[in-house]
Amino acid sequence: MYITQGLTRAVLVNRQGMATIDGERQRTWAEFGGRVAKLAGALQSLGMETDDRVAVLAFNSDRYLELFFAVQWAGGIIVPLNTRLAVAELVTMLNDAGPRILVVDDSFVNILPELTAKVAAIQYIILAGDSDAPEGVLGYEELMAAAVAIPDSERGNDDIAAILYTGGTTGLPKGVMLTHRNLISNALAAIANMPDPQPWVYLHSAPMFHIADCQWNVGITMLAATHVFMPRFVPEQLLTTIEKYQVTHCALVPTMINLVYNVAHRVQADTSSLIRLNYGGSPMPPAIITKARDIFPNCQFIQGYGQTETAPNISMLPDAYHVTEGPMAGKIESAGRPILTMAVKIVDAVDNEVPQGEIGEIAVRGPNVMAGYWNKPEETAAALRGGWLHTGDAGYLDEDGFLTIVDRVKDMIITGGENVYSAEVENVIYQYPGVALCAVIGIPDEIWGEVVHAIVVPKEGVEITAEALLQHCRAHIAGYKCPRSLDIHTDPLPMSGAGKILKRELRKPFWEGHTRQVS
Amino acid sequence: MYITQGLTRAVLVNRQGMATIDGERQRTWAEFGGRVAKLAGALQSLGMETDDRVAVLAFNSDRYLELFFAVQWAGGIIVPLNTRLAVAELVTMLNDAGPRILVVDDSFVNILPELTAKVAAIQYIILAGDSDAPEGVLGYEELMAAAVAIPDSERGNDDIAAILYTGGTTGLPKGVMLTHRNLISNALAAIANMPDPQPWVYLHSAPMFHIADCQWNVGITMLAATHVFMPRFVPEQLLTTIEKYQVTHCALVPTMINLVYNVAHRVQADTSSLIRLNYGGSPMPPAIITKARDIFPNCQFIQGYGQTETAPNISMLPDAYHVTEGPMAGKIESAGRPILTMAVKIVDAVDNEVPQGEIGEIAVRGPNVMAGYWNKPEETAAALRGGWLHTGDAGYLDEDGFLTIVDRVKDMIITGGENVYSAEVENVIYQYPGVALCAVIGIPDEIWGEVVHAIVVPKEGVEITAEALLQHCRAHIAGYKCPRSLDIHTDPLPMSGAGKILKRELRKPFWEGHTRQVS
Repeated sequence: MYITQGLTRAVLVNRQGMATIDGERQRTWAEFGGRVAKLAGALQSLGMETDDRVAVLAFNSDRYLELFFAVQWAGGIIVPLNTRLAVAELVTMLNDAGPRILVVDDSFVNILPELTAKVAAIQYIILAGDSDAPEGVLGYEELMAAAVAIPDSERGNDDIAAILYTGGTTGLPKGVMLTHRNLISNALAAIANMPDPQPWVYLHSAPMFHIADCQWNVGITMLAATHVFMPRFVPEQLLTTIEKYQVTHCALVPTMINLVYNVAHRVQADTSSLIRLNYGGSPMPPAIITKARDIFPNCQFIQGYGQTETAPNISMLPDAYHVTEGPMAGKIESAGRPILTMAVKIVDAVDNEVPQGEIGEIAVRGPNVMAGYWNKPEETAAALRGGWLHTGDAGYLDEDGFLTIVDRVKDMIITGGENVYSAEVENVIYQYPGVALCAVIGIPDEIWGEVVHAIVVPKEGVEITAEALLQHCRAHIAGYKCPRSLDIHTDPLPMSGAGKILKRELRKPFWEGHTRQVS
Repeated sequence: MYITQGLTRAVLVNRQGMATIDGERQRTWAEFGGRVAKLAGALQSLGMETDDRVAVLAFNSDRYLELFFAVQWAGGIIVPLNTRLAVAELVTMLNDAGPRILVVDDSFVNILPELTAKVAAIQYIILAGDSDAPEGVLGYEELMAAAVAIPDSERGNDDIAAILYTGGTTGLPKGVMLTHRNLISNALAAIANMPDPQPWVYLHSAPMFHIADCQWNVGITMLAATHVFMPRFVPEQLLTTIEKYQVTHCALVPTMINLVYNVAHRVQADTSSLIRLNYGGSPMPPAIITKARDIFPNCQFIQGYGQTETAPNISMLPDAYHVTEGPMAGKIESAGRPILTMAVKIVDAVDNEVPQGEIGEIAVRGPNVMAGYWNKPEETAAALRGGWLHTGDAGYLDEDGFLTIVDRVKDMIITGGENVYSAEVENVIYQYPGVALCAVIGIPDEIWGEVVHAIVVPKEGVEITAEALLQHCRAHIAGYKCPRSLDIHTDPLPMSGAGKILKRELRKPFWEGHTRQVS
């Protein structure tokens, strides 16, 4: 399994078909393939060797995709960096990955002096933007124009294709090594799970450094379909881009869907071309699915559950189960069933499988499980102990084989000996009118160990009182699950690059001077 | 990638769903899974060890499928034998594979004395039939009843799962070693190529020892769908079985479709449940596709091109291209485009890639390419030279990436320096009214090297004269391609177990005392 084989096939079977649409800059598969082979030649001319890392810090664009394939074509490893990180975090990752070549776009030119000063490995910087390259920086198009196309290096199978850093929500970053086989197996199983006879037009709306989007670099190319780019996620722009390019598929995380819903009535775009929306990254509160159906009338919603370590799909919930009545009802809060190639089991704290129906940690095995964490043999061994990847997610398998995620093992709140799953409490809070965002965390308590605390952001112009909201909770869930305290925030909550609320950040002020059992 | 993972998943996600239908004997996935684990225990209790071969000589049945999975579950390698072979051929294969356990059904009890006398490796024989086991033979159900279920051996990835013998049409048999990864990659790519939201009911209508059907042991199980069995291919029974069990999918070779067509008007079965028919194994004359649409009105036809060595899919032609008018026309005689994971190139006699559009040998690479030929390191090295499988098929890639098979390299006729592709001539002959079957071969000629010879079987009750048929040929193809001689046969033609006409047998009497350049 070779990632570049998908590209070669796309050029073979859809030469004149549209490969990339980045606003007015549009290229066919024949053009795209030619540029990839030349860019690969440019990288090699800079001394890039087999297994060399090439890091990229940029917003979504066609050049990002060209670089993704050119690095494979030249035999290297791509390292997509999170655009939302602080310089200090980027420096940590770059020093871990040790790339000789760094590619940035216009937005990151200003931090280049600091990055190069603190990362000794970097020898070349390429500006994949539209402005002129400053001194000491190579222009992307100039480099391409001067380059000679090279033959495919034909790296594949268990060779490392990409390193994606995780840990944005849980401490020190770990570089997940994904092989060619990981990414292709994931794409194949995802395509097999999503029957779509018509040609796809896929919008890169989630960040390309995140596996939720990065996976489709491979899948859409295997299908010889069309890639459309949005530099960054702007809710209004998502809607107008779908209309303009007749986008058929995109991937979002639930918080993004909520943000789109909040502007949809203002934008009034025709989104009827959208037939599939893959969502995932965190459980989807049922209340938001209802909103999503309102704004995307022809769209099927498919939940993909997974993580970077699994490239990323573990399970999928088809659209037909997104109902609350009829024979398919009762599964809408689950993450669906394991994808075709993935084995899933639920284990206890000492790795024994628990009986079907009981909650434990989700452990998985299959061809998309990562090769390991870059430079982290101990963490790799711990995560892959016994040949199974330990996801860190708590969940259970029901009698039909549907997997329900109850929480991150780390976000579970233990209060007076009872387990409270923050996601369950959040679901109830989202059902309350006027709630834009919420997060439920455990905070320290001398008597109960932890108690449940909620942080709620109301929609613009809406006022919510803590007392009324707590009353709503008491009417819907057991007393021990209800928040003991509640903050109404008007500032935005801290978010990861993928649009997940950073609970670690929210917990921090409460836990200063305390130690959490699970951290 | 573990074949048994697909079974475990099917039990998990569709416990009460129907797994196997063999007439009145019908079992759920939970029952099927339980029987596989017990049968695996029985095999181990007979001393079966990791990588031991278990051979099976039987007509299609639910027990065939149970055995297929039980051998994987117990860590072995299954060797499905062609039920049409002569005893001497079976002895050759069995002595090559060296199985300690042989499983047969009632039809083969009579040849057991000869097989055991000539194959020293065989220690146990299991009768997977409905009659009583003769002395020295173990009864399948008795063995199962006494067995204890064992845990999955968890063989997978590059471990050998099956050995299938090829060479029925071309000389000495070679045991193709297919790994877990080969079979699963093939199934995944095939499923991704065939979007079908509804539950599948798959009919094992082609022989289970042949890869065209064997591949679906894995694919249908991965989908947790339903397997239906026909002991052997009987055209009338195919139609009534589709009606009775509401079959949605099956796989046939073109000659079978022709035979079904010839009886369809008599049987008058309701075949409206059939929505996909996979055909392949040899090029499909366009005239037969038209007939197939008549008898299966709701059915989409998908051509799969491949061979045992590729587990088997190389390319697929979707239904939409089975038209002779409109924008999709012009591809109906092709074998479609490479499946998602398969790289295809066309090479000349010294393995240089030829320009797109030119004819040469089809060479392929991808995750479904076999591990090699069992016990045949030289043939393996020759077939896989340069990292590409050499298919022995002559063909070309058009400007849209569609692959057209012009002939087996060995069936190509070289007459007076011109290449004649037998399939092209056969297509023209099939268009002549009243032709049931035909085969075009090269026979020796002192002046031209070879000349074109046709063998034609008319439909029952139809008379065809050689002169009129030759005149038809002259009106449609160049003179050098027209048969120089023509036999009208009323006896059946020699066929392989997969329903392919054995041209080697047809050529034999003509070539005695001569040597063909390509043999």
